[in-house]
Amino acid sequence: MNQYPSILLGNAVDQFASLPGIGRKTALRLVLHLLRQSDKDVEAFTDALKTLKSDAHYCRICHTISDQELCPICQSHKRDKHTVCVVENVQDVMSIENTGQYHGLYHVLGGVISPMDGVGPSDLEIDSLVTRIETEEIKEVILALPTTMEGDTTNFYIYRRLQNTTLHHSTPLKISQIARGVAIGNELEYTDEITLGRSIINRIDFKV
Amino acid sequence: MNQYPSILLGNAVDQFASLPGIGRKTALRLVLHLLRQSDKDVEAFTDALKTLKSDAHYCRICHTISDQELCPICQSHKRDKHTVCVVENVQDVMSIENTGQYHGLYHVLGGVISPMDGVGPSDLEIDSLVTRIETEEIKEVILALPTTMEGDTTNFYIYRRLQNTTLHHSTPLKISQIARGVAIGNELEYTDEITLGRSIINRIDFKV
Repeated sequence: MNQYPSILLGNAVDQFASLPGIGRKTALRLVLHLLRQSDKDVEAFTDALKTLKSDAHYCRICHTISDQELCPICQSHKRDKHTVCVVENVQDVMSIENTGQYHGLYHVLGGVISPMDGVGPSDLEIDSLVTRIETEEIKEVILALPTTMEGDTTNFYIYRRLQNTTLHHSTPLKISQIARGVAIGNELEYTDEITLGRSIINRIDFKV
Repeated sequence: MNQYPSILLGNAVDQFASLPGIGRKTALRLVLHLLRQSDKDVEAFTDALKTLKSDAHYCRICHTISDQELCPICQSHKRDKHTVCVVENVQDVMSIENTGQYHGLYHVLGGVISPMDGVGPSDLEIDSLVTRIETEEIKEVILALPTTMEGDTTNFYIYRRLQNTTLHHSTPLKISQIARGVAIGNELEYTDEITLGRSIINRIDFKV
């Protein structure tokens, strides 16, 4: 007897186990769960994935996932068209949207520069960002990339590219980055030294 | 803007999040992973699930999952037809098969008696087990249910049912249960008291 009593079962387990963070035991548990569901439920599951894959687009301007050619944010008249927030991926757009603190546009790079993983600037949506700066009425670019070495490298690369870019308007382009420091609710003694050190160097005026 | 930039994405996340042990953040990560795969890969994923659901059978005799009406174990001529191991579910069959220590048949109950969850004896494959004892050449039943209160209740219920069963042959039926005690490789000081206590009560002769 094989490891699995059924080839079909083995195939389904293989498929689930190919997903990131799902091992073979978890995959088996998920497959057996689906097997206990009604035909209709399993069909709804597979259909949702198929439709997503066939019908989902990436927004032509900001490259986030969208049902249409343009995402709701790029289409909206309520958003501040002068500010673009540069993020690594679609999850980051959702995270920032969930804060309710940002009302500008986005630009999804699709990754960060990482020579170790063979990701160079040309693999990312950096050229299209430069084109946006050249053609749209953008006054501020907020760099909201991960606070890792790869994120910092990408920040610096974009900064250099944008400095040499001819703007669409005469106001100089403002380039900012998200604040880094002690997370809200964290004790100082449990904050790592680099974060704490930076939060002292980059201290801001106390406001009441 | 909704929580998700795309309704299709939201649907797919909902489907994954309906699986046991998968939260919404993990679901989103899995969906975005699938979205990055080729059309062919996503199709292979959904097809494996659809085919499993439509073509997988439960073995007519032992109720494990199978590609045919009878599972490979029930069909095999190499297995000991005189011994039946009673287990809760299909995973348990695979776990015992992986040990390579058992060469008899199986009987999958599909659960254990649990009044709290509304599972009674009639919801389980107990009647079909009794029928097997009455009609097949079974000489030993090994109870390999979980070592929980529900497992013990089910063990006892099956024991009582089998005592009143008319056998197919004249040899008295042997009913055994898997050994419970200190797990191999475990230190005594980290073993819980009930397990350790039972392992002393149920001590066996030392063999060299």
